[in-house]
Amino acid sequence: MNVIELIKKKRDGDELSRNEINFLVQSFTKNKMPDYQFSAFLMAAFIKGMNVDETSYLTEAMLYSGKVINLNSVKGIKVDKHSTGGIGDKTSLIIAPIAAAAGVPVPMISGRGLGHTGGTLDKLESIPGFRTDLSLQEYKNAVKKCGVVLIGQTKEIAPADKVIYSLRDVTGTVESIPLITASIMSKKLAEGIDGLVLDIKTGSGAFMKSLKDAEILANSLISTAKAFKKEVIGFITDMNQPLGNYIGNWFEVYESVLVLKGEVKGDLYELCLSLAGAMIFLGKKASSIEEGIEISKEMITSGKAYDKFIAMVKIQHGRIDVIENPVKYPRSKFSEIISAKKGYLSSVNNLEIGMAALELGAGRMTKEDIIDHKAGIIFHKKIGDATKKGEVLAELYSDSKNKLKAARERILRAVEYSDKKVNGPKLIKKIIY
Amino acid sequence: MNVIELIKKKRDGDELSRNEINFLVQSFTKNKMPDYQFSAFLMAAFIKGMNVDETSYLTEAMLYSGKVINLNSVKGIKVDKHSTGGIGDKTSLIIAPIAAAAGVPVPMISGRGLGHTGGTLDKLESIPGFRTDLSLQEYKNAVKKCGVVLIGQTKEIAPADKVIYSLRDVTGTVESIPLITASIMSKKLAEGIDGLVLDIKTGSGAFMKSLKDAEILANSLISTAKAFKKEVIGFITDMNQPLGNYIGNWFEVYESVLVLKGEVKGDLYELCLSLAGAMIFLGKKASSIEEGIEISKEMITSGKAYDKFIAMVKIQHGRIDVIENPVKYPRSKFSEIISAKKGYLSSVNNLEIGMAALELGAGRMTKEDIIDHKAGIIFHKKIGDATKKGEVLAELYSDSKNKLKAARERILRAVEYSDKKVNGPKLIKKIIY
Repeated sequence: MNVIELIKKKRDGDELSRNEINFLVQSFTKNKMPDYQFSAFLMAAFIKGMNVDETSYLTEAMLYSGKVINLNSVKGIKVDKHSTGGIGDKTSLIIAPIAAAAGVPVPMISGRGLGHTGGTLDKLESIPGFRTDLSLQEYKNAVKKCGVVLIGQTKEIAPADKVIYSLRDVTGTVESIPLITASIMSKKLAEGIDGLVLDIKTGSGAFMKSLKDAEILANSLISTAKAFKKEVIGFITDMNQPLGNYIGNWFEVYESVLVLKGEVKGDLYELCLSLAGAMIFLGKKASSIEEGIEISKEMITSGKAYDKFIAMVKIQHGRIDVIENPVKYPRSKFSEIISAKKGYLSSVNNLEIGMAALELGAGRMTKEDIIDHKAGIIFHKKIGDATKKGEVLAELYSDSKNKLKAARERILRAVEYSDKKVNGPKLIKKIIY
Repeated sequence: MNVIELIKKKRDGDELSRNEINFLVQSFTKNKMPDYQFSAFLMAAFIKGMNVDETSYLTEAMLYSGKVINLNSVKGIKVDKHSTGGIGDKTSLIIAPIAAAAGVPVPMISGRGLGHTGGTLDKLESIPGFRTDLSLQEYKNAVKKCGVVLIGQTKEIAPADKVIYSLRDVTGTVESIPLITASIMSKKLAEGIDGLVLDIKTGSGAFMKSLKDAEILANSLISTAKAFKKEVIGFITDMNQPLGNYIGNWFEVYESVLVLKGEVKGDLYELCLSLAGAMIFLGKKASSIEEGIEISKEMITSGKAYDKFIAMVKIQHGRIDVIENPVKYPRSKFSEIISAKKGYLSSVNNLEIGMAALELGAGRMTKEDIIDHKAGIIFHKKIGDATKKGEVLAELYSDSKNKLKAARERILRAVEYSDKKVNGPKLIKKIIY
């Protein structure tokens, strides 16, 4: 096969075959094709698109660039969840133990945060001692023993994704549905799962700003999962304001524990019930999502979900004393309160809230930045809430006074009030089978 | 300026500014931008296109990557011709001396052949001793003294074109009107010309197969030339069969001399009159192309054009004895005759004729191949000619019997006959001012 001919084929909008896509990915990742040729291909694929088949082939080629974990020795239908990320999105920490408590094994390989969205690994690592760098053997053992495990990307998992993403990042080819799909799915399919719940975020704090784009991405991910014979359910959910009230790594662990203990309800709780309900349904421990939701509630009220979380923290070497007694956790040197205006909170530029948390030290701007696990925001109000003058809108925590100031300004710019009552955004916008 | 943002801008089909295009070209050619970013930009420009302004800016940035020759010390309006190339296209060798004989200085910087099209430099170098590697000072002196010079690309001329073309060649981004335009015009504008005649070939042996595509390229080249305040006339001419009858480097010099001496008429002669006529008109030595054509005829009948050719060969160190006495020129070891069928020659796959000549040793497949100057084809018939069985259709010349065989097969496949009389293609399809 001739690389230039394949680039031209995609350039002219023609469909590439399974062999052709595999040849391109193999050539590039095995250093047999210079990066300037692969970047030309990526740009052609970005502009001309790739259909469902091509996207599956790309996913397959990237998937088999590395190891596909075999979890056949783990009983049950293995189900994971993937979220496209957002502000305060800590559902993985909650729904993985719920589903596992209900008997659905959850083998989860997750990512780190970059920019305004947080990463599950960073959140878990705010628990002292917690190890996300388990070997694949330890990963298997943990699923077997505990029913749930949450680790980071290893070098063995879809190495093609890493090199392709690095090239996309510097060639203006990131925001492409087929390329995003292959990147996400090649990593998820390597986990050894049978089913997958997708949480596609939409709104001001999400990668997909519009519902339409979120649907396109959801359908692309779902089609690809189905091409690999995986059971899949896609949720399109709101990211026009923070999910829950806590933003920042330890803060989000803390809030997750509150939800797992049944001490906090609200949007985060509601979404977790639905996502966990779908996982339990896919894991064939419920005959519908609704029944899965009921089981999820039971897992919380019975304490089984919390126990499973504790078991997971233990098996991954995390200290449970701070979980059981959060006042032991170190606090930020400085804090500040932002007061609300009188009226109704009518809109939040959620991206700015994420940027404010990043500013406080809760995230990283570049891959090399070091995270301050205790920094973050408690955002007390939801869109539609009536607010009194002087009431607390948000609390900011950081070790730097300057950072507090910058974050404060961002948040003040990010919120709007209305004199009239407004409705909050719908939390779950669509469920796609 | 941020390279990735500029790539994205073109990717999304937006117009780039003069500064932005200059920044991209400068960054790449000065090794400040990795080639994988420039190839992503090239692919985006290929697919999304560039408008007339952007094409001029790209041309400008590439032009000023090198030296722009100042020919102010040469009296008269300096005019060159550029052809997009074809089979048997040796017009430069004929019209440059004609125009120079008529008092129009012709400073011509030309290219080598690659693939099925021949290159003016290779043809001239078939004349023993002929030097195409004159320095820019020798080039200037030759135009001043002789009124005509024909040299090769130097390192000082549009160096950006060389590196950009090399990248386009391996990234599937060659066949783009704006990129082709900038590549051609950046080199032509560096010559120090005031006017330019363009010969855009169309047909089975041309880069632009359809008349429509040829017109698009012609208009793009003309718009760019005008943006640089150059006088320009574009011809769209036929390349559905070889131009003239001789294909191969020395063969084409030989045929050019025959035309210059007035000993051969036909399509080559007709086209040369028109192109030279247009050059003489642009050089303000005639008040119309038609008058220019009349002057061109005079230059031939008076012997002045031939004398100018001889003067040019002399000033560029070529041996004139082989020009004056072509039997002195070495001959190929082997030759073969292809006989015609009875009927009318109805079509020629001209690309195949070019490939046959290449096969015989007249061209190069890769830049490293060495040309056999004496190899080639004499193609005796034109489309529409009545042919008798056994009459000579073509003569093939090569030092290798195997090559003769391969070329013969190509030519047999390339020609078709008809029982009914057919018309030949129109030679000059369009003249665009």
